[in-house]
Amino acid sequence: MQEYATPLRDMLFVLREVAPLDEVNQLPGCADVNLEMAEAILTEAGKFATEVLSPLNVVGDQKGAKCVDGVVTTAPGWRDAYSQFVSGGWNGLGGDAEHGGQGAPRLVSALVEEIWNGANMAFTLCPMLTHGAIEALELCGSPAQKKTYLPKLVSGEWAGTMLLTEPQAGSDLAAVRSRATPRGDGTYGVEGQKIFITYGEHDLTENIIHLVLARTPDAPPGVKGISLFVVPKFLVQADGSVGARNDIRCVSLEHKLGIHASPTAVLAMGDQGGAVGWLVGEENRGIEYMFIMMNAARYAVGLQGIGLSERAYQQALWYARERVQGSELGSKNRQGVPILRHPDVRRMLLLMKSQTEATRALASVTAAAIDTARCHPDAAQRAASQAFVELMIPIVKGWSTEASQEITSLGVQVHGGMGFVEETGAAQLFRDARITTIYEGTTGIQAADLMGRKVARDGGATIRRVMAEMSGVVAELEKAGSADLSSIAATLREAVAALEAAVQFVLTTFGTDVRRAAVGAGPFLMLFGTVAGGWQMARSALAAQRQIALGHGDGFYRAKIATARFYADHVLTRASSLSRATVSGAEGALAIEDDHF
Amino acid sequence: MQEYATPLRDMLFVLREVAPLDEVNQLPGCADVNLEMAEAILTEAGKFATEVLSPLNVVGDQKGAKCVDGVVTTAPGWRDAYSQFVSGGWNGLGGDAEHGGQGAPRLVSALVEEIWNGANMAFTLCPMLTHGAIEALELCGSPAQKKTYLPKLVSGEWAGTMLLTEPQAGSDLAAVRSRATPRGDGTYGVEGQKIFITYGEHDLTENIIHLVLARTPDAPPGVKGISLFVVPKFLVQADGSVGARNDIRCVSLEHKLGIHASPTAVLAMGDQGGAVGWLVGEENRGIEYMFIMMNAARYAVGLQGIGLSERAYQQALWYARERVQGSELGSKNRQGVPILRHPDVRRMLLLMKSQTEATRALASVTAAAIDTARCHPDAAQRAASQAFVELMIPIVKGWSTEASQEITSLGVQVHGGMGFVEETGAAQLFRDARITTIYEGTTGIQAADLMGRKVARDGGATIRRVMAEMSGVVAELEKAGSADLSSIAATLREAVAALEAAVQFVLTTFGTDVRRAAVGAGPFLMLFGTVAGGWQMARSALAAQRQIALGHGDGFYRAKIATARFYADHVLTRASSLSRATVSGAEGALAIEDDHF
Repeated sequence: MQEYATPLRDMLFVLREVAPLDEVNQLPGCADVNLEMAEAILTEAGKFATEVLSPLNVVGDQKGAKCVDGVVTTAPGWRDAYSQFVSGGWNGLGGDAEHGGQGAPRLVSALVEEIWNGANMAFTLCPMLTHGAIEALELCGSPAQKKTYLPKLVSGEWAGTMLLTEPQAGSDLAAVRSRATPRGDGTYGVEGQKIFITYGEHDLTENIIHLVLARTPDAPPGVKGISLFVVPKFLVQADGSVGARNDIRCVSLEHKLGIHASPTAVLAMGDQGGAVGWLVGEENRGIEYMFIMMNAARYAVGLQGIGLSERAYQQALWYARERVQGSELGSKNRQGVPILRHPDVRRMLLLMKSQTEATRALASVTAAAIDTARCHPDAAQRAASQAFVELMIPIVKGWSTEASQEITSLGVQVHGGMGFVEETGAAQLFRDARITTIYEGTTGIQAADLMGRKVARDGGATIRRVMAEMSGVVAELEKAGSADLSSIAATLREAVAALEAAVQFVLTTFGTDVRRAAVGAGPFLMLFGTVAGGWQMARSALAAQRQIALGHGDGFYRAKIATARFYADHVLTRASSLSRATVSGAEGALAIEDDHF
Repeated sequence: MQEYATPLRDMLFVLREVAPLDEVNQLPGCADVNLEMAEAILTEAGKFATEVLSPLNVVGDQKGAKCVDGVVTTAPGWRDAYSQFVSGGWNGLGGDAEHGGQGAPRLVSALVEEIWNGANMAFTLCPMLTHGAIEALELCGSPAQKKTYLPKLVSGEWAGTMLLTEPQAGSDLAAVRSRATPRGDGTYGVEGQKIFITYGEHDLTENIIHLVLARTPDAPPGVKGISLFVVPKFLVQADGSVGARNDIRCVSLEHKLGIHASPTAVLAMGDQGGAVGWLVGEENRGIEYMFIMMNAARYAVGLQGIGLSERAYQQALWYARERVQGSELGSKNRQGVPILRHPDVRRMLLLMKSQTEATRALASVTAAAIDTARCHPDAAQRAASQAFVELMIPIVKGWSTEASQEITSLGVQVHGGMGFVEETGAAQLFRDARITTIYEGTTGIQAADLMGRKVARDGGATIRRVMAEMSGVVAELEKAGSADLSSIAATLREAVAALEAAVQFVLTTFGTDVRRAAVGAGPFLMLFGTVAGGWQMARSALAAQRQIALGHGDGFYRAKIATARFYADHVLTRASSLSRATVSGAEGALAIEDDHF
């Protein structure tokens, strides 16, 4: 099995040409990390990923996390790796300087996070959840809460979680039943059972700060009666040190298809009198806060998909170079060749490579917009960037993770029979990837969010601004005077038209016949993702063409153009089918009677 | 978890309307099984599947087969189930009456085999491999070999295997190195190591009859120097009883992603002086024999895909009816509804249902042609049916199993977070399905077979005959005067045109630029499968329409039309994209330099 290697040159290409770090670097508060610094960070992160996290990936898969009498032990090597991660300052890379973070722009920290995920996604879930808790407390915690929790969460000495799901409340958080009763001293007694809690219990940190959705006694029903509480595993004493054990305990861990090393806990609160919790922000606004945090979490799951895709590609490519089988097609020479020479294997590898690059490029452009929305001095620019980010979140989450299903499955396929044998490692990536389209909102939830909140709600204004940019790229491609770029232009132009037809459908149907529109939500998400990926691949090809024109014409840039061409011919061409499924796919699904499925 | 239930009404619909058993029943030698008898067989098989095989599926997954010192023990309950399977006469259902089989037509035995696979695919691999060995011996065994082995293989008292793969010889059997040296008494000493041997060793039968590819001392290199040998685990004595242990032993079992209960063995021959083997057929014709047998084995793997797809659909549908989450979209009523009511869940379930039905219909039409090719009194009819069968084998194998990847993955997705938890059972189907696109020739191998041997070689004659039939169905649909059928007609007409463009490309390119053609082989296979599925779904819709016109207008027939309509809108529309990837997808894959992947 190959260890993960950072795709440094590809990442730097993105930072130079696709989502220019130079521009983000100009923003107030983003001056610290320039390209040179980013290269150093990516290189150092890559070392840690290859040497420490990557070798533990298979250990974690085989040994998993164990729960005995409520005590969770992570896989061998996990504690040591986490402690190195924290002492190396990696947990605080993107964190606010005020609480001890290093304030790197999201554009850079996102690539670093892709590296962690490529090396070991099950490990990376721990800091990812901590970042969610940090965001919640930064957003709506009291000054005292911030002071108590943020420095240790930012450093990674403590970990964070999010306790949303209950057996009857998965996608539908309105059904949350956990209760929080005021104890008269400003604290609440929190009771209830939460399931599917990622890193809900573990031995990596001295404390775990749980953020919990629960209802106060007189709360209204539904989503508007849910509040957010902070419930630490150990109560924090006045001097900041860890005190008494709180009444929140791990009942069991799930036996899962993948990410075995990430403990997915069932947590009981209140079995011994009630867990002590503190209200975060205002009462009954818990769901609202969660939705704001959700953007960050969903974006982070997109990075999981991209990291796994990259690793699956590396693994498959390595195997395709090593494995000799059959001879060169179309040649009289009967000598064995690496399977990389076989056209069908090249096709599979390029489906992997091109979609990995497309998802990375789009996530990076979105990250740059996150930085712009946060730091740009001009309010209109901030608002425009924020609208773009919100439009893109369901795509970065939904489309990148759906792509990772295809890519990790192709990774198994390239290995042939060896891919089905667990020792090869390809199967683990396939299993691990399977959760990414489910948690933090299934692809169906992302699709509903995209269609309803992000496209129909603003009358298509934001998506059409993006489509205008795409059409601008088509015009650039046409002017470039290259057969490859002209061909990409033609396919992209068609794809944008197919997207426009679907947007039209959404705008005319969503308000009048929402069930009809909703059958098309899934294909619409994949359509927009596929076309947005084509847009970014086209921009990459233009950049590569510029580099070649400047005399930097090595194989790397030629490969960028070939990969973009391949994406256009094999992936972007799916746009027409997806558009038709969006626009005219509702009849059968609405006609069939429930009893006759 | 739900136990498997035979989709009896769907299967009878196929036997009445799609692949009429009445027609097969007219053929000489196929008179025994009429519709009434078929219904009784499917019902009885269904009982055994639901009561015995289905509950063992999860046991097999969790316990797996174990190898200790070369002795393989199957999962708890396996031996008893196998013995019931044999005593119930199921192993010999499709077998030749001359050797104790019941001679059921393939059309019926294929549906029964789908049932076994749906209930427990890991179990079903054992009889599947035995059938492969039976076919090899029927095809080219000597009268003595037939007499020695066939009765006990047909009954299932003994099991069979196929020993093809070696570490360096997977898809490329020309690289086989195992040696067979004449011992001067008519037998051969066989030495070598074979890997990935399904049910290569187990405790279900008193003997295992291995069919082994090996080279004789003076054999020419490459595929033309490989012979086929029969190597029994225990030598058979003159009276037919089991004698001395042969020198073929299990070294280890693979640790696999799925089908844990199916022992995948590494087998060593000759560690203790050489395994005794007997030449089957003529020397150096082993690969040729294997290729003839391969058709049957590939067809059988297609049935695995279909069986898993059906079970994944049943499981997801059951969950979608049970799980209450969210309220009715577009309604003011905020009461919880089963997720089956949500448009996106309906879409996922119909992607599963429609593709399962499409693959079953095409496999059944192919099975009827297998029967016709074997039994029809007219040689021209036999030849035409045989050509159709050979064209369809890579589709039934490649397309049905690729569809099962999508379907079993959707099965996980419908379950949401519960799908990722192993106890639900959806994940096992997803893992088990993953091998079906790999063994008995990967999808890439099927695609090369389709493009080269089945389409280019006869100048497109056979595929165009099939396309003419498809166009006939388009005309029928147009005459039917129904909005659904007219819409299906329009989509099918377009899809046939997209297929014709791809066939044109294959015919003009395969002989002149085979590498360019070969990049399109994978999409071409999926294109032909998708369109052929649309053809069968359209025929199903026409049949349902006829039944409704006859006054049999219950929801079952309306659902058939709705399902066909859905398939046309969501699946058949993929034809245009696949056609473009076939025809113009080679540039990027051929341009990229090996070092710059």
